[in-house]
Amino acid sequence: MTVLVFLDPDYDDGRIADASQPQLMATDLGATRGDGIFETLLAVDGRPRKVQAHLDRLASSGVLLGLELPAADSWQRAIDTALREAGPADEQVVKLVVTRGVEGAGAPTAWVQVSPVSESVRAKRGRGLAVLLLERGYDSTVAQRAPWLLMGAKTLSYAVNMAAIRHAHEQGADDVIFTSSDGKVLEGPTSTVLIARVRDGGKELITPQLESGILPGTSQGALFAAAREAGWKLGYGPLVPADLFESDGVWLISSVRLLAPVLSLDGEPVSVSPALTAELSELVASVS
Amino acid sequence: MTVLVFLDPDYDDGRIADASQPQLMATDLGATRGDGIFETLLAVDGRPRKVQAHLDRLASSGVLLGLELPAADSWQRAIDTALREAGPADEQVVKLVVTRGVEGAGAPTAWVQVSPVSESVRAKRGRGLAVLLLERGYDSTVAQRAPWLLMGAKTLSYAVNMAAIRHAHEQGADDVIFTSSDGKVLEGPTSTVLIARVRDGGKELITPQLESGILPGTSQGALFAAAREAGWKLGYGPLVPADLFESDGVWLISSVRLLAPVLSLDGEPVSVSPALTAELSELVASVS
Repeated sequence: MTVLVFLDPDYDDGRIADASQPQLMATDLGATRGDGIFETLLAVDGRPRKVQAHLDRLASSGVLLGLELPAADSWQRAIDTALREAGPADEQVVKLVVTRGVEGAGAPTAWVQVSPVSESVRAKRGRGLAVLLLERGYDSTVAQRAPWLLMGAKTLSYAVNMAAIRHAHEQGADDVIFTSSDGKVLEGPTSTVLIARVRDGGKELITPQLESGILPGTSQGALFAAAREAGWKLGYGPLVPADLFESDGVWLISSVRLLAPVLSLDGEPVSVSPALTAELSELVASVS
Repeated sequence: MTVLVFLDPDYDDGRIADASQPQLMATDLGATRGDGIFETLLAVDGRPRKVQAHLDRLASSGVLLGLELPAADSWQRAIDTALREAGPADEQVVKLVVTRGVEGAGAPTAWVQVSPVSESVRAKRGRGLAVLLLERGYDSTVAQRAPWLLMGAKTLSYAVNMAAIRHAHEQGADDVIFTSSDGKVLEGPTSTVLIARVRDGGKELITPQLESGILPGTSQGALFAAAREAGWKLGYGPLVPADLFESDGVWLISSVRLLAPVLSLDGEPVSVSPALTAELSELVASVS
């Protein structure tokens, strides 16, 4: 069952709406221009994970798009309302969406959606991925000189991300890692890239650097904090594809699918370590 | 007044929906992923202009996104229904939208929207534009090697186009011409670029070449056909910013705002010819 709760100044705890009925205006700029932002969280046993990290990223996406967002406590209350309305479940997907609103209205549309984790996501959890390296078209320095490209904002304009995943599926692959036009490793269409290096017993976890225009991964951030506690060294790119092939493990990490080991890149196998995957997955599970 | 007509297999002429009420599901992938395509037409005295060119481009966008679209005659009937329902008007905006549909449903959502031409667009018609040249981040050859970037498809993922226009407004400019990372002139966020060269009495109309990953402009295409009839030579890029400064006129052309002369680029004046603007505007008006 899907639950919708709109953030509405007239309803302190959010306005519950019938998710089986249309609830968006056809002139909402989210629908007609992909002009809005979103976050996707996982709730476990009714408790949303990493809420603050997601609200922080939503706020920073809002700044990049010049969108005025409801305050964090309104989101918190709307999330609580939606989860209460949805009832108990071991796992749920919590989506936060803000659009620029109905054309001409000048007020954003904002809602929380709670829905079950799909069977297909559950089935894929932990399963290794065949990944394609696909060019994202941008060079790794453009984010800094062209803020209008909205790099680093999690916008609703995800058509290219979706097309890249479809392209991978058509080629028999599962997912994608984007590369920049100057050959740097960026991110997945819906995930963050991680690699591990084990040298002389020391373990290092590395992710591409934010300056390359990628999204700050909330799951990567939480895992990094937990890994540091557990004695891992942490590193930030730049990474090139050769670094992935020479690593001791490559993963894609995201809030709902969690940690997924990469088995191959463009059909070439990469190092796979079930022990490292287990260790890192445990750290991911420990995040609240 | 806005009129909505959904393309619905159960309704031969389209299903009229109340545009004052929400008509889209919050889980429609158009709203949550910008995963869909659109066209915007102008109707004059109740007659939509260049319908076939827009339906052709919609179809080609559909191919690029792997979307199955309703047949052209369904669109034609839905457009007729919407215009009839809207009643007589000198000018109306007709929007065609197709999204990938509600998540999990596997069927696209498609509709026609008819609405008045906004006062702000009417007021801006024919007025000269201060334009910023902004980097689009892609090089001019990426479209050919990276089809997943959906270059040349008119998708609903317009957040960057909208951000670029906001950026221009913040700088006191009116509009934007995107350039590629290799310095080529591309297109406006919602328009096609044209320049004119007058040499020894011969007139040439030039637009950037499609291979650079820009949208095929329906208005540019119709104007080119009319200009050829009127004795103009036609040319297709590549163009660089210097070509714009050295031309005898620069315009942005689109279906609703029509032909708008560019007065300056990044604050530097370009050649402005009211005579050429009048001549080309007349050719634009002659298009049916």
